[in-house]
Amino acid sequence: MNKGLLIVISGPAGSGKGTVNAHLLSTGDFVYSVSATTRDPRPGEVDGVNYHFITREEFLSRIESGAMLEYTEYCGNFYGTPLKEAEEVLASGKNLILEIEVEGAANVKRLYPEAVLILLLPPSFAVQEQRLRGRGTEAEEKIQKRLERTREEIAIADFYDYVVVNRDGLDRDAAEDIRAIVRAEIHAMRRDRSTVDHYFD
Amino acid sequence: MNKGLLIVISGPAGSGKGTVNAHLLSTGDFVYSVSATTRDPRPGEVDGVNYHFITREEFLSRIESGAMLEYTEYCGNFYGTPLKEAEEVLASGKNLILEIEVEGAANVKRLYPEAVLILLLPPSFAVQEQRLRGRGTEAEEKIQKRLERTREEIAIADFYDYVVVNRDGLDRDAAEDIRAIVRAEIHAMRRDRSTVDHYFD
Repeated sequence: MNKGLLIVISGPAGSGKGTVNAHLLSTGDFVYSVSATTRDPRPGEVDGVNYHFITREEFLSRIESGAMLEYTEYCGNFYGTPLKEAEEVLASGKNLILEIEVEGAANVKRLYPEAVLILLLPPSFAVQEQRLRGRGTEAEEKIQKRLERTREEIAIADFYDYVVVNRDGLDRDAAEDIRAIVRAEIHAMRRDRSTVDHYFD
Repeated sequence: MNKGLLIVISGPAGSGKGTVNAHLLSTGDFVYSVSATTRDPRPGEVDGVNYHFITREEFLSRIESGAMLEYTEYCGNFYGTPLKEAEEVLASGKNLILEIEVEGAANVKRLYPEAVLILLLPPSFAVQEQRLRGRGTEAEEKIQKRLERTREEIAIADFYDYVVVNRDGLDRDAAEDIRAIVRAEIHAMRRDRSTVDHYFD
């Protein structure tokens, strides 16, 4: 059986990543990795579903022992992908989606060059700004911080394999783009030469 | 406006290339290149629709003047893709499909590295043989020749970007694979950096 694809999706605040992921999840073709984090659960969040909530000590010990596929520190908390879970999903032939930041994506690409990296973006910085302010839920300072972070991320985003633009109200289109990317990658010669190599068997 | 994609589809006899192409054509997302050839029209074939039927002298003169994107000689006749027509289609933003042999595909890749090369195959050599004999229309000698040609083609097929297998009775699946490949390629970072490069404009 072929191994599943390791798919990384990154998207700045305002990219509509959440709704795109909900569409992908609803198709049943993908498994999402449950991240581990040291931050406190928010109301309604369930351990093992939204995140694996673990202590800072445990997180550091997992990094130490190589049990994290990737991790990042953000606003004083650690977030990471447990390696064992990821490898089990891929070995079962399912496609695993990691929803992680640009920095973590770069680490995954180094460890797993065969991973497929997709950057989800709003149509433009101006639209992103509108979307963030339109929410009306965040303080100006936090919005500025998110936008600043986007500047840093876009500046180093060359290593992504694909860029998908999430136009207003068209989350489904972006999800379909991502499904097409996965379907195409399965047939990439660099990924799977078995048909050609075993054609005469 | 973005240029269209130059897509090359090659498939040996028995790959079901004809029906796959018919599905793709029916979606309206693709334009097929009309090849030029020096062979005689078969009953029902229309000049300018199935082929541009031209003389050997004219074909050679077009090669000479660089008016052929690619060409090949097969069973004593020339087949080729007129360059000007191809460039007009791509400039209009439409995706152009060239249905050509492996040798011609290699030439296209040299001239247009950005072309997307797709190899359509039966599931195996055994199935291919069955399909060719099952037709019951061709002499054994011709079948042997086609199978021999497949051996030569598969041996050098590494340069294709994608391999799509056309399983029995599932031409539509193969066509959908090809549509997914085209949709994905449009978003490839190496092909289109405009979203990232102009994000802050």
